[in-house]
Amino acid sequence: LKTFRFTVLGSSSAVPTSKRFTTACVLNIHEQFFLFDCGEGAQIQARRAKVKFGKLNHIFISHLHGDHYFGLFGLLSSLSLLGRTSTLNIYGPKGLDELVMSQFSNINYQLGFNIKFHEIDNKSYSKILDTKTIEVYALPLKHKVPCSGFLVKEKPLQRNIIKEKIEEYNISIRDIRRIKDGEDLVFEDGTVISNDKLTIEPEKPRSFAFCSDTMYNEEIIPYIESVDLLYHEATFPDEMQKRAAETMHSTAREAGIIARKAKARKLILGHFSARYKTLELFEKEAKEEFKDVFLAEDLSEFDVD
Amino acid sequence: LKTFRFTVLGSSSAVPTSKRFTTACVLNIHEQFFLFDCGEGAQIQARRAKVKFGKLNHIFISHLHGDHYFGLFGLLSSLSLLGRTSTLNIYGPKGLDELVMSQFSNINYQLGFNIKFHEIDNKSYSKILDTKTIEVYALPLKHKVPCSGFLVKEKPLQRNIIKEKIEEYNISIRDIRRIKDGEDLVFEDGTVISNDKLTIEPEKPRSFAFCSDTMYNEEIIPYIESVDLLYHEATFPDEMQKRAAETMHSTAREAGIIARKAKARKLILGHFSARYKTLELFEKEAKEEFKDVFLAEDLSEFDVD
Repeated sequence: LKTFRFTVLGSSSAVPTSKRFTTACVLNIHEQFFLFDCGEGAQIQARRAKVKFGKLNHIFISHLHGDHYFGLFGLLSSLSLLGRTSTLNIYGPKGLDELVMSQFSNINYQLGFNIKFHEIDNKSYSKILDTKTIEVYALPLKHKVPCSGFLVKEKPLQRNIIKEKIEEYNISIRDIRRIKDGEDLVFEDGTVISNDKLTIEPEKPRSFAFCSDTMYNEEIIPYIESVDLLYHEATFPDEMQKRAAETMHSTAREAGIIARKAKARKLILGHFSARYKTLELFEKEAKEEFKDVFLAEDLSEFDVD
Repeated sequence: LKTFRFTVLGSSSAVPTSKRFTTACVLNIHEQFFLFDCGEGAQIQARRAKVKFGKLNHIFISHLHGDHYFGLFGLLSSLSLLGRTSTLNIYGPKGLDELVMSQFSNINYQLGFNIKFHEIDNKSYSKILDTKTIEVYALPLKHKVPCSGFLVKEKPLQRNIIKEKIEEYNISIRDIRRIKDGEDLVFEDGTVISNDKLTIEPEKPRSFAFCSDTMYNEEIIPYIESVDLLYHEATFPDEMQKRAAETMHSTAREAGIIARKAKARKLILGHFSARYKTLELFEKEAKEEFKDVFLAEDLSEFDVD
């Protein structure tokens, strides 16, 4: 089965701690890397997580708070110094383009590659990327500034051809491709071998949702229904419910309720307030709402299979 | 003896590695912290090094290459979130002010404290800070862009009064202060006890020089003569001499020659090219020129006593 792996690069909210960097995470889909948010030091964590920079072509920024994008300057500058020449796609809110490019132009620094900025409309659910293997959608979140989450859906995989059948019927490369797409095998004499005799069902397409900074918001549930991996911010435990509301963040329990109502397979909690040294409380409270809860500790990995 | 400790926060040049952050280091002088350069992630390393952010009032930036200042955004934003209200002094080249402040104004982020920018003239040796305990000078360095090093000199310490003498002569607090400043003790009847009978010599004032990015440049030697701790960049070993010259950086050997000619007490090498996984070669080559060579590995500490 091809890789579908989520790796946490930073799990702290606002201020990093000695153990937790600010928000950034990466999705490895079939050895292509997709970066979601880029807090300070994301490039260092990405190296530690063995992200292949040459296979990183899409960066998604949820909103313009420093703890979600201050790592872009260093990352872009390093990609350039490492010799990148191919275009890099960056998806984010209005203003990100200017924010990034002015930083480099102010110091007369010329990146060795082009950046294509894709401005996200944070008011509506919309497809922002469509490749051979995945589709990415922006999800409207509710936060102090315009903010989008992201939903990644793997496209249906091809059917798996049964190896013995290739030999048995001496199937050509061209026919193999057709059969993988679901077609039957038809011989010149008109004999038909139906597809279900030649192939087995492919794995179910997988999905991932990234809900970075948001207050409790049931409106996102229809979009993320049955998602395999739901990353949802959980800045505070119950005891800080009031502060969560004021700052338009979620509690761990609220993240659990969203996961349950959306029938997610797994919930990953992240974006923890720096005032908490340990995270048991977050896990415990979310688990009272939803069974499969995990903590997005820095450099932790989650495979979907 | 009061603290005079140099701590390395980042030792990589240009691009960080999984083990080395980009340039930043901190000097703890009598529990006041002074930050020199601020590469990405400096605030995280500073936490790991137990820097007291409340005692950090002066930041010195050598030049406007990203690997020396991209950590400012995160650090300033965290200081604000942590409740800082007192003015922070930042010393750096022309343009730094605009570079930093525009980043925050572009996202409508209001820092909770004021920043006082001190523009450095990188063409001349000049005093840029004078406090009760230290003087800081800017040193002209030779690099691709305007660049300054920094020399920190501890002010002469007070003489140490011999405790037994206080009791013996029943010396008042006021007189103790005078005696520490070097005065004799004079009684009402005119009796004089000379200062050298009451005190012992204080420790020699200590000094530190930070030569961040520079080609080999003997012009700095008179300024840093007899410095206790000389941090000097050593981006490359001998085998990359040509590349060092092209990029206006130094080799480890050149740093060793500067240290020898300046009669420094200790040389700390830093700013290592990311292409070197291990650093023995840098140390070996510098040691062929100068005896007391140390490597500025991340989070290493050097006390001057």
